[in-house]
Amino acid sequence: MIRPARASDRAAIWALLEPVFRAGDTYAVDPDISRDDALNMWIDAPKATFVAEHDGAIVGTYYIKTNQNGGGAHVCNCGYIVGPAARGQGIAKSMCLHSQEKALNLGYLSMQFNFVLESNADAVHLWTKLGFSIAGRLQKAFKHPQLGFVDALVMTKWLSREIP
Amino acid sequence: MIRPARASDRAAIWALLEPVFRAGDTYAVDPDISRDDALNMWIDAPKATFVAEHDGAIVGTYYIKTNQNGGGAHVCNCGYIVGPAARGQGIAKSMCLHSQEKALNLGYLSMQFNFVLESNADAVHLWTKLGFSIAGRLQKAFKHPQLGFVDALVMTKWLSREIP
Repeated sequence: MIRPARASDRAAIWALLEPVFRAGDTYAVDPDISRDDALNMWIDAPKATFVAEHDGAIVGTYYIKTNQNGGGAHVCNCGYIVGPAARGQGIAKSMCLHSQEKALNLGYLSMQFNFVLESNADAVHLWTKLGFSIAGRLQKAFKHPQLGFVDALVMTKWLSREIP
Repeated sequence: MIRPARASDRAAIWALLEPVFRAGDTYAVDPDISRDDALNMWIDAPKATFVAEHDGAIVGTYYIKTNQNGGGAHVCNCGYIVGPAARGQGIAKSMCLHSQEKALNLGYLSMQFNFVLESNADAVHLWTKLGFSIAGRLQKAFKHPQLGFVDALVMTKWLSREIP
């Protein structure tokens, strides 16, 4: 079940974000980011934030926001995190499909992931399967804590069936 | 002459930014952005901001900032604006060369432009001439007020001679 995040979900969302950000091997986020800054980035700044529930527990979360302003405001950006215990159960796929529908409801025409690490092979594979294309390769754009410099991919999917 | 922006330059910098942002045909900025928000974005949020002076007048400005946090923090991003009366005099080129040197001084290894409109042919040409490569093409990522949907390019240049 995927539903909008509520104010009372902040602790559960932080429990998902913290290990991912602290590890510093998938998101371009300062590993020392504070709880407040992380929740502001994930919940307050975006257009909307959702959580995935399973057996009453929050096992995943995603945000949707406008990727660029002005003439770029028809393209949204999303970030997804699934808790370690719930991985491999299709939750990231469900959240991505959900987010594509929400994006259209919010008036976006396209979705862009700005910084998918090539080393995050599961993510690259899943986004490709869900219709995203590699629009660009940012060479050595990320210094991975174990792998050293790795490439990041820009992935995009045009969502709207109408325009242009 | 290119020098760091001072608090007393804010009015002159806004005079450069305002017509560019209001036109909405080159930067992915809300055309209705307020003076305060624009100056915050250009001067306060970035790592550093510079102005180009000619005959005692400020004719150009650029900022330099960290493009991504965490493992992406070795890549900087810059934005440049030259006033209409001073275009075609090599000021953008001078500022870009200046920014590449400053980037290295600040410890960055690489520079990325996230959103160069293909319709801004002069910019694409200049950045290419100055050693930037097209790392990606964001199809129809910008709705140009006159041209409709246009592509945006991601352009990158590795600056450091040492690493990796």
